[in-house]
Amino acid sequence: MKNPTAAIIIIGNEILSGRTQDVNVQFIAMRLALRGIKLEDVRVVPDVPVRIIGAVNEMRAAYGMVFTTGGIGPTHDDITSECVAAAFGVPWEPHEPSMQVLREYLGPRMNAEQARMATLPRGAVPIRNEVSIAPGFTIGNVHVMAGVPRIMQSMFMALEPDLPCGQPIEMRAVHGMGVMEGNIAAGLGAIQNQFSDTDMGSYPFQRDGRWGVAIVAKGTDVARLEAAIIEASALIKAQGIDPVQGEPG
Amino acid sequence: MKNPTAAIIIIGNEILSGRTQDVNVQFIAMRLALRGIKLEDVRVVPDVPVRIIGAVNEMRAAYGMVFTTGGIGPTHDDITSECVAAAFGVPWEPHEPSMQVLREYLGPRMNAEQARMATLPRGAVPIRNEVSIAPGFTIGNVHVMAGVPRIMQSMFMALEPDLPCGQPIEMRAVHGMGVMEGNIAAGLGAIQNQFSDTDMGSYPFQRDGRWGVAIVAKGTDVARLEAAIIEASALIKAQGIDPVQGEPG
Repeated sequence: MKNPTAAIIIIGNEILSGRTQDVNVQFIAMRLALRGIKLEDVRVVPDVPVRIIGAVNEMRAAYGMVFTTGGIGPTHDDITSECVAAAFGVPWEPHEPSMQVLREYLGPRMNAEQARMATLPRGAVPIRNEVSIAPGFTIGNVHVMAGVPRIMQSMFMALEPDLPCGQPIEMRAVHGMGVMEGNIAAGLGAIQNQFSDTDMGSYPFQRDGRWGVAIVAKGTDVARLEAAIIEASALIKAQGIDPVQGEPG
Repeated sequence: MKNPTAAIIIIGNEILSGRTQDVNVQFIAMRLALRGIKLEDVRVVPDVPVRIIGAVNEMRAAYGMVFTTGGIGPTHDDITSECVAAAFGVPWEPHEPSMQVLREYLGPRMNAEQARMATLPRGAVPIRNEVSIAPGFTIGNVHVMAGVPRIMQSMFMALEPDLPCGQPIEMRAVHGMGVMEGNIAAGLGAIQNQFSDTDMGSYPFQRDGRWGVAIVAKGTDVARLEAAIIEASALIKAQGIDPVQGEPG
């Protein structure tokens, strides 16, 4: 079975300016891996229509599904929804059921900017969200979500049961303090060749001023991952260093 | 004066799998803004040659400078250097001065995998790094840096004095607890129109279970930013809410 593929488009000047630390990619990436969906591409684009439209069209053609985060509120810098309509070449128009929800929530106070939030690409299906009235939606293989992490997470959880499934992508790891990557590189390359169905990564890290290396095996066959990690542990041991199972804490 | 432009390519399966939370984008973004360099694009690509080569060539043509992070160590999954050589269409060959540094550091223990680290695209200039022997380098407008944040930061600091300068991109902010974005959206749009030389953003946030909105003005003219924030503060005040200068803490 081939794993479904996915991409993320982060829409937001606030990431590109350094104002905001993105945390949405890691959340989505971990949830997708559990479901066996392979995240293959992430882009951060500014609040500029041609860039958003271009990224949406390029990525929805290249990957099984696309998640966008950011730009769906009521203010002038929230332009994701109309850009997605333009990308799909469909009208951007009032979505009556969403308008109704907003009207119930806001009552007669509702203004034109708030009504903009219930303006969606024709054919879009709203995404439920327990946290706010932010209007996420799905159109084709594109899922348009909020940028605020708590709201995004609620939307993702609402989408999750309907996403396609692949075999879950599992991870096993071992690490050793004081390992020098260069000294295990040849051995690790040999393990990667032997376990060509797994994806072996080597990641230096620092703890309390000392360097170590974590070796991570990813793949769908847990028995193979565990066998690869046993080999990697032996490699660390051969350096005279005690291998510690799992990631460094 | 037009601000120089930049892009970042994050090379690493560990970001796409959710194993690792990227923190390099925010560091680079903030430093670039201080220097007046506009970060316009960020991509995360897997450890796959065609993807790395494609991203490098697309982005070095589109932006003034490109920073890559990750994939420059001695292990089999470190393929950035040879991919950058391929992107530039130049040989990937031993770089004698770097080889010399490695030899001094590692002595007769140096193995073939470690020597790979001193193999660079022809014409590459090494980037100094106070933390490790990881071989960052610059070729053309592409700066190839480590993925480990501390090493990346040391490399970036070494590059920084030689990067082109634009007018620093400054930020001013005001926030209000209890502000509903929809209620200030029209007013904020009007402020954006009035201060078209600044970039106004509106960002909902949550503190202690309550929602608020931060309004951020970015641009090169501090007097204009401050004037725009005075207008935004009045907008918050008109909601019966006390505006608080700066970002929410």
